[in-house]
Amino acid sequence: MQRAAARVLRGLRSPPVRALCAAPGTPPRGLLYERHGEPADVLQLKELELPALGHSDVLIKMLAAPINPADINMIQGTYALLAPLPAVAGNEGVGRVLEVGPGVVAVSPGDCIIPADAGLGTWRTHAVLPEDSLLRVGSDIPLLCAATLSINPCTAFRMLTDFESLAPGDSVIQNAANSGVGQAVIQIAKAMGIKTINVVRDRPDLPQLVERLLALGADHVVTEDALRKPEMKEIFKSIPKPRLALNCVGGRSTTEMLRHLQPKGTMVTYGGMAKQPVTVPVSAFIFRDVRLRGFWMTQWKKDHEKQSMASMVDTLCQMVRKGQLSAPACTAVPLEDFKEALAASMQPFTSSKQILLL
Amino acid sequence: MQRAAARVLRGLRSPPVRALCAAPGTPPRGLLYERHGEPADVLQLKELELPALGHSDVLIKMLAAPINPADINMIQGTYALLAPLPAVAGNEGVGRVLEVGPGVVAVSPGDCIIPADAGLGTWRTHAVLPEDSLLRVGSDIPLLCAATLSINPCTAFRMLTDFESLAPGDSVIQNAANSGVGQAVIQIAKAMGIKTINVVRDRPDLPQLVERLLALGADHVVTEDALRKPEMKEIFKSIPKPRLALNCVGGRSTTEMLRHLQPKGTMVTYGGMAKQPVTVPVSAFIFRDVRLRGFWMTQWKKDHEKQSMASMVDTLCQMVRKGQLSAPACTAVPLEDFKEALAASMQPFTSSKQILLL
Repeated sequence: MQRAAARVLRGLRSPPVRALCAAPGTPPRGLLYERHGEPADVLQLKELELPALGHSDVLIKMLAAPINPADINMIQGTYALLAPLPAVAGNEGVGRVLEVGPGVVAVSPGDCIIPADAGLGTWRTHAVLPEDSLLRVGSDIPLLCAATLSINPCTAFRMLTDFESLAPGDSVIQNAANSGVGQAVIQIAKAMGIKTINVVRDRPDLPQLVERLLALGADHVVTEDALRKPEMKEIFKSIPKPRLALNCVGGRSTTEMLRHLQPKGTMVTYGGMAKQPVTVPVSAFIFRDVRLRGFWMTQWKKDHEKQSMASMVDTLCQMVRKGQLSAPACTAVPLEDFKEALAASMQPFTSSKQILLL
Repeated sequence: MQRAAARVLRGLRSPPVRALCAAPGTPPRGLLYERHGEPADVLQLKELELPALGHSDVLIKMLAAPINPADINMIQGTYALLAPLPAVAGNEGVGRVLEVGPGVVAVSPGDCIIPADAGLGTWRTHAVLPEDSLLRVGSDIPLLCAATLSINPCTAFRMLTDFESLAPGDSVIQNAANSGVGQAVIQIAKAMGIKTINVVRDRPDLPQLVERLLALGADHVVTEDALRKPEMKEIFKSIPKPRLALNCVGGRSTTEMLRHLQPKGTMVTYGGMAKQPVTVPVSAFIFRDVRLRGFWMTQWKKDHEKQSMASMVDTLCQMVRKGQLSAPACTAVPLEDFKEALAASMQPFTSSKQILLL
């Protein structure tokens, strides 16, 4: 599936952003779609014409952009947020500022930037974007960390802080613990002194996965089947029952996870990998007073000032610098190999995020 | 089903409490169960020996007590709150104080009282109970109102005030609108200037039911089937989409009701008449930010000072006096006919609450 050119990189060992800043010169290109459909059918790698640089615009050389599930759903036309067509695909990534309009104050040429909003179209080599849509990150942040910072770690950070007041020693349970958000939850919770119980699907390479998540800082890693078994009681001899559950799956996995939540605890749903609804016994609401909420980073950004996002990104960058937060396991793929990268990103049990090098 | 002795009473037309205060003299009797099981099998009408009146105790002549679904479940042993066996059944009712211990300060002989807590055992003619477990209500409150005040109207009041800040003109949607809580929701919401959309199951006497709920103050009454139909759009031309949904059913009814909730709105589950779980599409959490909560009056009482309960009962009594809140449709049944009353209370589509006259 992977071309020889693909390189498997781990966040902390990837080069910092500045090392990959190429000089401009090659004509701008990007992955466009003119209609919704399967990405392999509708995405085209085309030369792009850059608009003139406006008063508050920034010319960017994009460096790297991940392929996230939401990107795929946007191209398919099944996502809650759709770009006007034709559109450049991609919602996340990192770039370097080449030139700024006369009214730009927050970034300068040479700065590294990430999108402040969804829907900017990051799968392209160059872009002219309004200053307001960008956030500056330090050039010392590793490339893959910066490229994957604005959605998953932000989602993890918000879910860990906005729903329950967790103190060191408290615990959190999450499913899809191997996802990009899941790995960020493990690391950010660890930095906050919060214990994590991490649920993953059973799979052939389970021991390696468990080992990897424990190395990231996970306190416990269990399979979905184990949620129904007495071994869970062993876990709760050493840590308290979770006040917060993070759900990215739906269906039975979610119902079983909910059973372990403390009375008056909160479950936050941010994804539905199983394509099944969340099903909750009536008694959990009435007699255990569990609270069910949802989270969508895109909506959070709409509801908050840009400064709140900037402040969170600064906090996360500090965690990166302290070695508390690394990028998820990534496979870097040259832009022209995008079809292979898309196919790999849509495989079940994928443990490596596909990153387009731009 | 009903014995000739049974009298159908409507709350506002029932006599006030003082009219039904009989002098003591008959030996104390009560409905006891020594083991859990079907009420008709395990309940026995027995003479009771009253304990001596302690320092802070109150001797009560019980007057009337409703048969609520939770009473049945407690006897069956399937409820989240169970009384130590042997137990007197019943959790709600109204009585008159006959005598007080020397340390009692809050009530005097002649006062009318209702239980402040669940589990007191109200299906008996006389009781000796601690002062702390009782609340005084005005003797001018109609008997059936007082007998049914401490659970359903309190549940309705709390759900309308504790989860969303509703302003006059806002709307609420509820299923099981014909239940005791449902009828209280209609009336209390009306008193607050809040519009109600009331969902009921289709049934042979639907037109009469609709008429009755509209007469109580309902703004709209729809069947479960209608929740999926375009006629709902007509409703939302004249009133806003609800910020609050009250769920006593579960299953498909609940999922359909949830579709009409405003983004960031709250659904509160307080019952599960369909004996099916609450099922929610993942997208409702993520993209519409709906919030799911639960409510149990018994837990609320545990979590709050008695003064909070007393204050709410005062507010509800004021509503009764203003004609804003009436008792649900009731069938009054002499204590010795309890088996018929139990059977009637367990019928599907019952529109009349069974009240034991004590």
